[in-house]
Amino acid sequence: MQKKLAELKNRLMEINDLQMAASLLNWDQSTYMPPGGAVARGRQMATLGRLAHEKFTSLEVGNLLDALRPYADTLPYDHDDAALLRRTQTDFDQATKIPAELLSELLAHNAAAYQAWTVARPENNFKAVEPLLQKTVELSRRVADCFPGYDHIADPLIDFSDEGMKAESIRALFAELRQAMVPLVKAITDQSVADDSCLKQTFPEDDQLAFGMKIVKQYGYDLARGRQDKTHHPFMTKFSLGDVRITTRVKENDLSEALFSTLHEAGHAMYEQGIRLDFEGTPLGVGTSSGVHESQSRLWENIVGRSRGFWQHYYPQLQAVFSSQLGQVDLDTFYRAINKVQPSLIRTDADEVTYNLHVMIRFDLELQLLEGTLAVKDLPEAWHGRYQSDLGLRAPDDRDGALQDVHWFMGMVGGAFQGYTLGNIMSGLFYDAALKAHQEIPDEIAQGQFGLLHGWLKENVYQHGRKYTANELVEKISGGPLTIAPYIAYLQNKFGELYNL
Amino acid sequence: MQKKLAELKNRLMEINDLQMAASLLNWDQSTYMPPGGAVARGRQMATLGRLAHEKFTSLEVGNLLDALRPYADTLPYDHDDAALLRRTQTDFDQATKIPAELLSELLAHNAAAYQAWTVARPENNFKAVEPLLQKTVELSRRVADCFPGYDHIADPLIDFSDEGMKAESIRALFAELRQAMVPLVKAITDQSVADDSCLKQTFPEDDQLAFGMKIVKQYGYDLARGRQDKTHHPFMTKFSLGDVRITTRVKENDLSEALFSTLHEAGHAMYEQGIRLDFEGTPLGVGTSSGVHESQSRLWENIVGRSRGFWQHYYPQLQAVFSSQLGQVDLDTFYRAINKVQPSLIRTDADEVTYNLHVMIRFDLELQLLEGTLAVKDLPEAWHGRYQSDLGLRAPDDRDGALQDVHWFMGMVGGAFQGYTLGNIMSGLFYDAALKAHQEIPDEIAQGQFGLLHGWLKENVYQHGRKYTANELVEKISGGPLTIAPYIAYLQNKFGELYNL
Repeated sequence: MQKKLAELKNRLMEINDLQMAASLLNWDQSTYMPPGGAVARGRQMATLGRLAHEKFTSLEVGNLLDALRPYADTLPYDHDDAALLRRTQTDFDQATKIPAELLSELLAHNAAAYQAWTVARPENNFKAVEPLLQKTVELSRRVADCFPGYDHIADPLIDFSDEGMKAESIRALFAELRQAMVPLVKAITDQSVADDSCLKQTFPEDDQLAFGMKIVKQYGYDLARGRQDKTHHPFMTKFSLGDVRITTRVKENDLSEALFSTLHEAGHAMYEQGIRLDFEGTPLGVGTSSGVHESQSRLWENIVGRSRGFWQHYYPQLQAVFSSQLGQVDLDTFYRAINKVQPSLIRTDADEVTYNLHVMIRFDLELQLLEGTLAVKDLPEAWHGRYQSDLGLRAPDDRDGALQDVHWFMGMVGGAFQGYTLGNIMSGLFYDAALKAHQEIPDEIAQGQFGLLHGWLKENVYQHGRKYTANELVEKISGGPLTIAPYIAYLQNKFGELYNL
Repeated sequence: MQKKLAELKNRLMEINDLQMAASLLNWDQSTYMPPGGAVARGRQMATLGRLAHEKFTSLEVGNLLDALRPYADTLPYDHDDAALLRRTQTDFDQATKIPAELLSELLAHNAAAYQAWTVARPENNFKAVEPLLQKTVELSRRVADCFPGYDHIADPLIDFSDEGMKAESIRALFAELRQAMVPLVKAITDQSVADDSCLKQTFPEDDQLAFGMKIVKQYGYDLARGRQDKTHHPFMTKFSLGDVRITTRVKENDLSEALFSTLHEAGHAMYEQGIRLDFEGTPLGVGTSSGVHESQSRLWENIVGRSRGFWQHYYPQLQAVFSSQLGQVDLDTFYRAINKVQPSLIRTDADEVTYNLHVMIRFDLELQLLEGTLAVKDLPEAWHGRYQSDLGLRAPDDRDGALQDVHWFMGMVGGAFQGYTLGNIMSGLFYDAALKAHQEIPDEIAQGQFGLLHGWLKENVYQHGRKYTANELVEKISGGPLTIAPYIAYLQNKFGELYNL
C-alpha cells in the first residue's frame, strides 16, 4: 500500500509541476510578457493544462485510487493519508465525471460568450448575449447533472470552489446576513457621507508600493518566498509553497487602490505560505476553498488593515512618507475616509459593508436562473429590482446592471459568487476565535505587531491546507457550524462607533 | 503523407511547448524568483525536460519519421519538408542513440564534477578534480562512440552544437587563424597599451540601461517581441518567435559591461526574431548552430558596435547622457578605450582580438584529451605552455589556468568551445558579403541606421532558422567553404588603423 501511495504521490507531483508551470506562464503573461508572445503563450498554457488533465484522469490514477480505497477505509478520518485520498478522489470525480464532449462544448461556449460580452457590455446590449447566457444556464445544469444525488442543482457547482457547502444553507445564512445588513447600511447612510478626498490627492507610485510592502512584511508575508509585481488586475499566484507571489495596481491619484489590494493579496499569500511543507505537490497543498481564502484576504485587508488601532500605529509613518498630502489631515479624518460607506452600483468598487449586498444579489439570482424560477430574459429587471430593494439604487442601464460582471460570461452560472461573502463571514468568525485565544491581539496590532494573530492563523487555518473543508475547519475552530454572529458583531461594533449608531 | 506530416508537426509543437515553458521557468529563476522557490523550480524544470524528452523519443515519433522517409526522399534538398525531416531525424538520433544508462551516468557525473569544481577552483586544487575530469573524458568518448563512422572522435560532440562541422577542418582553420593572430597581437602590444580609464568612472545604472536599449531598438531588436531584464550573467532566451528576451548585468563603475553585453545579446535575439514564423514550434524554428549564433552576437557587438563610424554617430549622444564623465573625453580616446587590446589570462575578460587565442587553446586541448595525446594529469602544464606561446603570459596558478572555465566541469570535453571562434570568423564573412551587396552599409551605420545590414541578415541568415547548417549557409552566401580571409582582413584593417601598423 505504501508503495502504491508513493506512486500516486509521484504522479500527483508531476501533475502539480505541470500546473505550477502553467501558473508561471500565466503570471508572466500578466507582468512582463511582450505583446508578441501572446499567441504562443495561450497555446503553451493550453498544452500544459491538457497534459496535466490527461495525466490526472488517466487509468493509472484511477486504478491507484481504487487500490488505495481499502487502505483509506482503515484510517481515522483525520489521518493525512485519508485526507489526501479523499481530496484526490473529489478532484478525480470532478475531472472524470463530466464527459469530454460536454467539457469541450462548455469551453467553446465560454469563449464565444466571453467574446460577445466584451462587445455587448459597452453597447449596453443585453439582448445580444441573452441566448448565450441561456445556453450557459443549460450547460451549467448539464454539468451539475453529472453529479447526481444533490439537494440543490447548484450544489455540485458550488462544490468546485467551496467543497461541502450547500445552496440551501448558504441561502439561509445570506438571508440572515441581508436582514442585518440592509438596516445597518440604511442607518449609516442616513448620516452624512464620509469625506474621502484626502485619499484622492497625488501620491508617487514608488512610495505607495514601498509603504504597502513594508506593512505586509510586518504582517508576516515572507519575501524570501514571495514578491510583488504590478499587473492590470491584482492577484495572488503560487508556483510552489516556497514561491507565492502577489500583484497589485497603483493609481497615482488614489491612495487606497494599491495599499488595500496589497494587504488583500498578501492575506491570500500568507495562507498559501503557511501550508504544511509535506503537503507540497498534493491536492492538500493548497487553500481549502474560495471562501476560506477570501476570509484571509479580507481579514488582513479589512479587519486588521482598516482598523483604528492599526492606523494609530501606521498613520504617523504614512504621514511621514506623504507629508505634503497628509501632514494636515488628522487620523480620524483618514480613518473615516478609508472606511467610507456608500451604496453604489459597482461590486468591485463597493466598501466593506455594502460589498456583501452586491454578492448576495448575484448569488440569489444565479440560484433562480439554475432553478428556472427566473428566466434569462427577465434577469435585467430582476437585477434592478434587487438593487432597488437592497441598496436603494437603480443602474441607469444593463451595462452597470446584469452585464456588470464577467463571471457568468466566462464560466458557469452557479458557484461563482458565494465565496466572497462566505469569506467575509468566516473572517469575522476566525478573528473572533483568535481574539478568544489571545486577548492581546488588538494591542499588538496597535503596535504594528502581528505575531499572535498570524501565529494563531497558521496553527488553526493555514497549515492544514486542504486537509479539512471549510465547514470542517469552522467546526474545529468554533465548535459549531458557520454563523454570521461574530461577523455582524464586528461590523456593528466598528461602524456603530464610526457613525454613532 | 501530409496527414502523417501534420501529426509529426503537432507532436513537435507539443514538445516545443514543454521546452519553451521550461525556458520561461529558467528565465524566471534568473530574474525574479525569490530564493524560496529554488527547490521546487529545479524539480519543475526537470519534469518538463523529462516529459519533452519522453515525448520526443517515443515510438510514435520514430514511426512517423520512418513512415515519412520515402516522402522526404522524393523532395528536393532545399524543400522545407525535407529540411524539417532531416533536422528532426538528427535530433531524434542524438536523443535516442545514447543509451539511457549512459545518459544518466553522464548527468550524475556532471553534477558531481560541477560540485567539485566549485570547491576546487577557489582552492587552486586541480588534483581534486583530476579523476573526475578523467572520467568526463571517458564518458565523452563513450558518447561519441554512440555515433560510429566519425572521422575524428570529437565530431559527434561538435555536431551537438555545430552540426556538420568537423574537428579536422576546424583545426586547420584555427591553425591558420592563430598564425595570423599571434603576430597581430604582438604588433599591437609592442605599441603602448590603450588607456580605458574613461570607462571606469561612475555611471548611474538606469542611464546605462536606457542607452543600451535605445541602441538595440535602433538596431532592429523588436521590443514588441522582446525585453531586457537584469541577471547575474547575461543571456538570450526564447519562449516563442514572438517573445525573445535578453538579459544584462550592469556595473556602475564600468560603462562597457552592460552596454556591450546588451549589444551582444541583442544580436542573438535579432537572429531568433528573424526566423520564418511558419517554422515556429519545429526543429527549424531556431538558430542553426552555436557558431552562427555567435556570429550574430559578435557582429552587432564588435563589427558594428565597436566601429568608429558607429561612435561618430552615438558618442555625442553618450556624452550628453554622461556629460560629467565623458564631456571632456574626445571620440578618439573613447574609441581606443573600447577597443583596447591587451593579452590577459581570463577568456571572458578578453578583447576582440585576443579572445580567439583563448578559445583556440581550449579547442586544441580538448581534442588532445579526447584523442589521448594529452593526459588529464598533464593538462595544467599544457595550458600554461600554450598561454606562454600564444599570449606571452603564464597564469600564476591553475585557478586562472586549467580550472578557469566551467564548461568541462558541467558537460562533456569536446564541442564546448569551437562555436565562439567559428562565430567570429563567420561574423567577418557575413559582414563582408553584406558589404558586397550594399556598399552603403558603413555610411548608414555612421548615421545610426541599420536597416540595410539588418535586412540583408534577415534575408540571408535569420529567416532560414535551422533549415541550413552553418556550412550550407556559408556556401549559399559566399559560394565556397568557410574561410578566415574576410575576418582577418577586418581585424587587420581596423586594428592596423588604430595602432598604425
